[in-house]
Amino acid sequence: MGEFDLIERYFKRPAKRAALGVGDDCALLRPTPGTQLAISSDMLVENRHFFADVDPATLGHKALAVNLSDLAACGATPLAFTLALALPGADEAWLAAFSSGLFALADAHGCELIGGDTTQGPLNICITVFGEVPVLNGKSQALLRSGAKAGDDVYVSGTLGDARLALDALRGTLALPTLAPPLELAPALPLALLAQTRQRLERPAPRVALGQALRGVATAALDLSDGLLGDLTHILKASGVGATLDTSLALNLLAARQHADWTPGLVSAQKQLECVLSGGDDYELAFTAPPSAREAVQTAARLSATPVTRIGHIELEPGLRLVDAQGQRLSGQFFSFDHFA
Amino acid sequence: MGEFDLIERYFKRPAKRAALGVGDDCALLRPTPGTQLAISSDMLVENRHFFADVDPATLGHKALAVNLSDLAACGATPLAFTLALALPGADEAWLAAFSSGLFALADAHGCELIGGDTTQGPLNICITVFGEVPVLNGKSQALLRSGAKAGDDVYVSGTLGDARLALDALRGTLALPTLAPPLELAPALPLALLAQTRQRLERPAPRVALGQALRGVATAALDLSDGLLGDLTHILKASGVGATLDTSLALNLLAARQHADWTPGLVSAQKQLECVLSGGDDYELAFTAPPSAREAVQTAARLSATPVTRIGHIELEPGLRLVDAQGQRLSGQFFSFDHFA
Repeated sequence: MGEFDLIERYFKRPAKRAALGVGDDCALLRPTPGTQLAISSDMLVENRHFFADVDPATLGHKALAVNLSDLAACGATPLAFTLALALPGADEAWLAAFSSGLFALADAHGCELIGGDTTQGPLNICITVFGEVPVLNGKSQALLRSGAKAGDDVYVSGTLGDARLALDALRGTLALPTLAPPLELAPALPLALLAQTRQRLERPAPRVALGQALRGVATAALDLSDGLLGDLTHILKASGVGATLDTSLALNLLAARQHADWTPGLVSAQKQLECVLSGGDDYELAFTAPPSAREAVQTAARLSATPVTRIGHIELEPGLRLVDAQGQRLSGQFFSFDHFA
Repeated sequence: MGEFDLIERYFKRPAKRAALGVGDDCALLRPTPGTQLAISSDMLVENRHFFADVDPATLGHKALAVNLSDLAACGATPLAFTLALALPGADEAWLAAFSSGLFALADAHGCELIGGDTTQGPLNICITVFGEVPVLNGKSQALLRSGAKAGDDVYVSGTLGDARLALDALRGTLALPTLAPPLELAPALPLALLAQTRQRLERPAPRVALGQALRGVATAALDLSDGLLGDLTHILKASGVGATLDTSLALNLLAARQHADWTPGLVSAQKQLECVLSGGDDYELAFTAPPSAREAVQTAARLSATPVTRIGHIELEPGLRLVDAQGQRLSGQFFSFDHFA
């Protein structure tokens, strides 16, 4: 199967919203009058963003999901995407599964594939996604990182930390070695619990509906990919403010704790907090809004069928502070994921 | 150096044309009213699209050039691009050189970097480029592959085949082995000639000005990346036509033949024809236009300071036929580059 057969068979579908889709030198997009185009690119690399043996349908889902999550963070309505693929070879079963996972999520969001590239090389998936944001009275309705104000509440959507819990369980690094040598690992997660958390790692649900519902409500927003503390710091820096977070509220965001197979002591309290605060791969939204907008935030959450939790507040003093349920300052090292640190 | 320092130091520059550039979840682009957005993605992989020891400034140039060439093929005016980079590590000297080569070409075309991604992995460069095409009286002015008509002339811009000549010389596959074992290769290219052809391989000049000048003149166009015969076939298929090309005219497009160090017999006639017809990596435009537009084509060539050569014509009969200067049909196998064939 050649390069063009491969594209024809697995990736070419008639353009619906675009003026011209896959098959020419460029795709042509007709922007809706009165909107701005929101654009984001994400690249996924084997052994860095996914395991080599990942189900290709799952990988197709995730590759697009992490991009849609960036649109969600801006409050943009998904429109289209390009896909550049480096593949070790043209494996038809792999391509069929990958494209089915990709298109299932794309169709669910009305986001069409309009172009891209395929080449031979170490597996690498690069998607660039396009969405629209309305401009009202000359003012963009995009949610940016730079709008947080002292006094604003800090919210997080959905649940946090489960993806990292799954990753550590799969890597065998969830528990510390108890005996050596040879190393024996303390029990990892019960299978049903592993399956649930693994869903969060492999099939994140981009919060596209919530992002759109938060336009005109949230003062700042971003999506959580590298971990709550590191990502929230981007909002704080861009907005020139600081924040205090209540870790006892954050800890409740770990969905695994509600699972029937969860038992006290299964995962240490420190590890739970690590997963929630700096686990990464959550693809939830973190956002800020003034206390006067609490009802509007709940309305946005209800309209988008997405739970949101208030976990802290923005302050004038720069920096990010953690407190427990009694308001006592916590110390401790939590790091954000950095590809080159 | 961490991921965000790397972006800050080498890739973040203030947005000029975009409403929002590097640094948020999405970039925001304001399309000019009355235009369509032309979009193209190209991915470059080490050892596939470039040698591992390539000068990084040259690589930065080429990575953007091949994308601008797609905009040129559509007649689009460059606007902006995103860059996704997988890097084995954060090598500062490499990044400084790569970004300088990239931005030099970007600035020459008024095309600004508005976002992207960086990750750790086998070297991979994925650029998505955005341009604008006017829409006049409801009709897009984009040059497509599908508009060629029987009777149209076939043109090629600039020169062809030199990039492949350089590639074969660098690979040591230009000449056939004359003795074995051990193999001895017939003389490769003289150094000055290698340097000239290597420029074509490593620093292609995208025909952006010509593409724009051909709007409303050419009936179909594309850019030549995989070789003239294979690429032209895309126009023929998309337009439902065939073509005859005069190989004696095509052969003159090999710039190396005009070099002071060129000597008869240096490169076999068959090899010359192979380089011109199916060499690849040319990044010239192939386009069609009716005989009534010959003066308009020459005007477009003059206005864009880009030579164009008429090398054949479009016919109703499907397929691509090659003839010599006397109009005699040539047979012979010429293949186009295919990543998975």
